[in-house]
Amino acid sequence: MSIETTLATFRERLGEVVDINQATSILHWDQEVFMPPKGAAARGQQLATLSAIAHRYFTSEEMGRLLAELTEAADQLDPDDAKLVAETHHDYERATKLPESFVQEFALVQSAAYEAWANAREEDDFPAFQPHLEKILDLLRRKADYLGYEGSPYNALIEDYERGMTAETLRGIFDVVAERQSALVERVTSAPQPDCSWTEGEWDEDTQWAMTLRVLADMGYDFEAGRQDKSVHPFTTSFGARDVRLTNRVNKSELFSALYGAAHEGGHGLYEQGFLDRDRRTPLADGISLGIHESQSRMWENMIGRSLPFWEHYTPVLRDLHGGKLDGIAPEQFYQAVNRVRPSFIRVEADECTYNLHVILRFEIELDLVEGRIAVADIPDAWNAKVKQYLGLDVPSNTMGCLQDIHWSHGSMGYFPTYALGNLYSAQMFDVILRDLPGLWDDVRAGRFVPLLGWLREHVHQHGRRKLAGELIRDISGRDLTPDAYLAYLESKYAALYGLV
Amino acid sequence: MSIETTLATFRERLGEVVDINQATSILHWDQEVFMPPKGAAARGQQLATLSAIAHRYFTSEEMGRLLAELTEAADQLDPDDAKLVAETHHDYERATKLPESFVQEFALVQSAAYEAWANAREEDDFPAFQPHLEKILDLLRRKADYLGYEGSPYNALIEDYERGMTAETLRGIFDVVAERQSALVERVTSAPQPDCSWTEGEWDEDTQWAMTLRVLADMGYDFEAGRQDKSVHPFTTSFGARDVRLTNRVNKSELFSALYGAAHEGGHGLYEQGFLDRDRRTPLADGISLGIHESQSRMWENMIGRSLPFWEHYTPVLRDLHGGKLDGIAPEQFYQAVNRVRPSFIRVEADECTYNLHVILRFEIELDLVEGRIAVADIPDAWNAKVKQYLGLDVPSNTMGCLQDIHWSHGSMGYFPTYALGNLYSAQMFDVILRDLPGLWDDVRAGRFVPLLGWLREHVHQHGRRKLAGELIRDISGRDLTPDAYLAYLESKYAALYGLV
Repeated sequence: MSIETTLATFRERLGEVVDINQATSILHWDQEVFMPPKGAAARGQQLATLSAIAHRYFTSEEMGRLLAELTEAADQLDPDDAKLVAETHHDYERATKLPESFVQEFALVQSAAYEAWANAREEDDFPAFQPHLEKILDLLRRKADYLGYEGSPYNALIEDYERGMTAETLRGIFDVVAERQSALVERVTSAPQPDCSWTEGEWDEDTQWAMTLRVLADMGYDFEAGRQDKSVHPFTTSFGARDVRLTNRVNKSELFSALYGAAHEGGHGLYEQGFLDRDRRTPLADGISLGIHESQSRMWENMIGRSLPFWEHYTPVLRDLHGGKLDGIAPEQFYQAVNRVRPSFIRVEADECTYNLHVILRFEIELDLVEGRIAVADIPDAWNAKVKQYLGLDVPSNTMGCLQDIHWSHGSMGYFPTYALGNLYSAQMFDVILRDLPGLWDDVRAGRFVPLLGWLREHVHQHGRRKLAGELIRDISGRDLTPDAYLAYLESKYAALYGLV
Repeated sequence: MSIETTLATFRERLGEVVDINQATSILHWDQEVFMPPKGAAARGQQLATLSAIAHRYFTSEEMGRLLAELTEAADQLDPDDAKLVAETHHDYERATKLPESFVQEFALVQSAAYEAWANAREEDDFPAFQPHLEKILDLLRRKADYLGYEGSPYNALIEDYERGMTAETLRGIFDVVAERQSALVERVTSAPQPDCSWTEGEWDEDTQWAMTLRVLADMGYDFEAGRQDKSVHPFTTSFGARDVRLTNRVNKSELFSALYGAAHEGGHGLYEQGFLDRDRRTPLADGISLGIHESQSRMWENMIGRSLPFWEHYTPVLRDLHGGKLDGIAPEQFYQAVNRVRPSFIRVEADECTYNLHVILRFEIELDLVEGRIAVADIPDAWNAKVKQYLGLDVPSNTMGCLQDIHWSHGSMGYFPTYALGNLYSAQMFDVILRDLPGLWDDVRAGRFVPLLGWLREHVHQHGRRKLAGELIRDISGRDLTPDAYLAYLESKYAALYGLV
């Protein structure tokens, strides 16, 4: 076969795998958004079958042969094709390193662990979950062995979520973040608190939804290539860059949560809509890493959405929509209300000032577990001590503590750090954005987001998976990731908000 | 391998095919209901890939081997398993009779014909569609040759939609229907027409939707195992018997169209929800034929939904929902209004009295085409002559005539007759239902549909594909399908409505 024919066959086989994976995503989306409850059993089987077929197709002998030939002939390929082959080769290697029997065992343990976790959380019964988590931890260590790693076995696990990142680097960065951010929390919580009682009461749900659609459209989200629907937990998924689905939820008693849900998921959605047409049906049309993905959502949600210029623009809009109920509330008051700091037990409800601390304590526990310094039975004590240390709170129950997140029951360790990395990446990018777009805040004050989106399209979105996260942040900012930009942003924002000296 | 192992493997392989087909249905449903417009290209590829995989899996050598072994050992299987093997064998034979090159050619011609048809209808330009339809007709004749047939090649095509039915039988039945039904139309249209001007005006869309949900719930449609959403054309699809999706549309200026859309699709949906749990992930959990499927929708829509007892129950309900706008309108007036006869050019808008005539003229033209008595170029003249003969109307354009339906552009001939068969089956069943459930009309008058649904569950739904249509109707009524019951129903209904002597 000529190299062109091999490449064409390879692209077609790969395209089939992408098609199946996108079909799987459609089934998942429908499951969360519209599926009637009794459809669950059949849906589980449809999903299992599609996943098995995608794996079978992707790890086929033919795919291996095509990849070997194309890797051999890489110097005859144009740069885009060479990148596609290299990235696919990377995925193929990882996918074929895990024996099928191991994957099946993992799926079984995971499924039982998820059930056990859901009950344990309900019943505040950590010991009931403990043996399941022990099995998960054992499997994760074996997984690391299959995949191979340098340094910590945790490094093998991070690769699934934040390729190229290491435990050592994370520790160095997070130590600084933990120290400075917990100090900031202490200063903020000791300062006088703003009066936000005007946010209490009931806020019409349709009006809230209309506001989310307005903001998404302003951000540049293309509703011809996407939608927003309701689900229990907000998420973003895509079936190709021209069909990106956001979900969100509305709560009558929360004036802002749907709005920030939309800004957050909208940030993810804009990333997905920004992949190039020529990358469609290939793995290049995908986010670099969960951290980079999260940098997009957190930038729109927090750096833009929780800024004063944002509220200078949207205060009259929101006042109009709610028909008089917010008359007399100034932009500065919205700005204060959406940035209120209240240390709490639950990560997903945490404010910007405390959020990373929730993440870091999970990372530290995960690392201690994987490296064998603590046992699963030690988790509750370790958790509660860290919450005391970082947030100054006494955890009242494991349900409010180490049982709150789904991730471990799913067998995901190495995932949590990406939430904090998203914040750090976003701030390090944002310093450059402010230099490249000196009129940015005037734009935001006028509800103009086109320049910002244009910058993100050019510097982040269009590349898809052509760069690793480390390369991307170096290309943008001229240096490796550090916590400096984010901490400086946070400290100056909250110093001003809370009148800290 | 033991027969049990072979059977288990067979069921698992078959289950995978069912899973993929259900996933395909989910993608189709989403495409019609929620997909943003720019998602169409990727969706086309996802669907093509899933269809190809389903075909590949179903026609695999392994499947052939398993079927051969199980067919050989059929006497060792319990009746249910034997039926499953026999039905699957039937499908496998048909699926493997068409060479892959033919299937691909068909898909290409079909896709071009669909585009050409959509333009030709828009432009009222039959000659632009003619060469495409000629290719389709040629392919359909070749398809019939591949599949094999006795008598007319049309018989091979009917098999896809109404297994066991023949052109000869259809002709015998339809000749009687055409004669008596067109005579009835003439008498009805010569009689004085009721005043239905009160149905004109605007009818709140949310109220109409609420009415559809009310009626569906009353019919026994399980909303824990299904939904109703909006789409351009109403349809029903299912992803297993516990996830059945109806779609419908609402038009402000039509008081009844959403209601009857719901009753019709609800009839299809109840059939799908009525398959047995033990048949899940097998082809036995499927409708017998399109005609039997249509008998369920037409029974609920017309025999129940367009009856006087139905309106004796729902008149106050609808009056309440529309808040006074219908005060003073009596059940008899609703009954008259929903049964108004107005011969028209468009099949999908046709009333009960004229509907079969639209179908029969298409059948006659299809048969003449497939058997070579007329050429594609002759279609417009043949069409217009038949519309004049059966409906007394002069067709003003091919757009309002032979270009109105999508079916031929899709390569479907033999499909149309099933619409009329649905009416005939439903009436022949209904005579038995009235005998078995003497209180039926009292039940309907009280909004109680449980006994009727129970009867349909027992005599129709639960069997899935265990019987062919001919067997089913014989088991229910003691004889083969005839047009007698339907014509008697129609003649007596309209004689009463229009005061015919």
